[in-house]
Amino acid sequence: MKLVSFRKDGRQSYGAVVNGNVIDAGMKFADRWSSLKTALADKDGLNQIELALDTDLPAHDMGNVEMLPPVPDASKIFCIGLNYRTHIAETGRDTPTQPMVFSRFSDSLVGSRVPLIKPKVSDQFDFEGELAVVIGQRCRHVRTEDALGYVAGYSCINEGSVRDYQRFTTQYLAGKTFWHSGGFGPWLTTSDEIPDPHALLLTTRLNGQVMQEASTSDLLFSVPELISYISKICPLDPGDVIATGTTGGVGAARKPPVWMKKGDKVEVEISSIGILSNTIEDEILE
Amino acid sequence: MKLVSFRKDGRQSYGAVVNGNVIDAGMKFADRWSSLKTALADKDGLNQIELALDTDLPAHDMGNVEMLPPVPDASKIFCIGLNYRTHIAETGRDTPTQPMVFSRFSDSLVGSRVPLIKPKVSDQFDFEGELAVVIGQRCRHVRTEDALGYVAGYSCINEGSVRDYQRFTTQYLAGKTFWHSGGFGPWLTTSDEIPDPHALLLTTRLNGQVMQEASTSDLLFSVPELISYISKICPLDPGDVIATGTTGGVGAARKPPVWMKKGDKVEVEISSIGILSNTIEDEILE
Repeated sequence: MKLVSFRKDGRQSYGAVVNGNVIDAGMKFADRWSSLKTALADKDGLNQIELALDTDLPAHDMGNVEMLPPVPDASKIFCIGLNYRTHIAETGRDTPTQPMVFSRFSDSLVGSRVPLIKPKVSDQFDFEGELAVVIGQRCRHVRTEDALGYVAGYSCINEGSVRDYQRFTTQYLAGKTFWHSGGFGPWLTTSDEIPDPHALLLTTRLNGQVMQEASTSDLLFSVPELISYISKICPLDPGDVIATGTTGGVGAARKPPVWMKKGDKVEVEISSIGILSNTIEDEILE
Repeated sequence: MKLVSFRKDGRQSYGAVVNGNVIDAGMKFADRWSSLKTALADKDGLNQIELALDTDLPAHDMGNVEMLPPVPDASKIFCIGLNYRTHIAETGRDTPTQPMVFSRFSDSLVGSRVPLIKPKVSDQFDFEGELAVVIGQRCRHVRTEDALGYVAGYSCINEGSVRDYQRFTTQYLAGKTFWHSGGFGPWLTTSDEIPDPHALLLTTRLNGQVMQEASTSDLLFSVPELISYISKICPLDPGDVIATGTTGGVGAARKPPVWMKKGDKVEVEISSIGILSNTIEDEILE
């Protein structure tokens, strides 16, 4: 399934994309599961949604809904730094011996086809295409060989980064959690459709030009290793997100640097998943 | 008011502490505000709670409830590193020219009188007493002279830190968000009772011995400067937390280092607020 969260006529809902239409499962299950996150947390949730897709639920044209991040209310979003050798090389940093984990808050991310906002306070607005892992089942102290069993599915993430704020101090958060600076979507492809998350082609395009391209087989710390590591620190809960890191080709490492600006279009495509597409708009101060 | 969140007989609620008793405002307002965070977000919320304290709401003995963090469901918890000169000196790091911002997730924090958990995977479990600021009103691009007007109140935070995980990479998050590693409370003292958050005495005690002591007047970046800086990055919402940084005296900087272990008792006291008190227990793997 391609699970989505969306807003339609002011109402927030969730469902699945079938033949290009958004099937509104939230219309049927809103009383039972207020969001896709709560449906994920119910072990029968995804089965019930899948069964309901064959019934007469409302189907919306995807162009007529506002796509939200698949999990708009993720409690924990973990981001992994320096997890592809090509990106480590272009940053000139040392290869980490443990996963480099930082975070961004959920209000920093929008769904596909919703504009990213270039902040007023900086022009150094950069893209980072990444594979996102969404947790389906609470887990703690997970062994790597069991880890993929806790994954609900996979999506694309554009970890929009404001480079000067990222580098003002050693801690990345300031540059990583600007409001509506990143994209997450277009949907959550359930893990039954992606038996091996390390056999995917990850491509980032800016105005149609390929800026980043890699196979997820090049991940330094694999998806199971990331899940295992983080689960020693804290529980991973349904809807929690791991953005697994970006590959070489970011705008900041180019000569001259390439920054995203108003009117640009940025796409993150992952094979077997789909295309996350966002245009860029300037921040308008209220 | 001293606003609290708590759990009693399996029910989560909120209210205020009056004469040592927990007045259960949630019993009256649960349908209107599901949590203290949603009451804060309603401009009439605190007024209504205050008025209700004079009515016949249930009063619980504080020893008979499980104290939760004042805002157990904070959407964003910002932590500030290196914000007192004594702590900068003991770490040997450079003085930041902008606030050093990182985060921890809300499931890393427990309320007062609830045990902190020393992780199985590390013995380097350290304390960090800090002043916590809780936002009362959504704000964005705030001028420093207006910033204190957006504060709901203040509390104590113990930013329990797992030092080896903090230092495995440049990014602190891994060492800062261990499950139940920190304390937050005992309550939220509303800002009308604290006209100047920079005139408070901040003390951390381990088993009764003073380990950290400073005036909040020594903050490198003041509370208004922190609010202003963060609000350029993203909106600050009701219930969002800023842990303003710790002062000299942390366990890791001592020779030999002092780590918290099972049976220890750690207290963070701030004048005009109160005492956050937690014992330490070992993690038990399921």
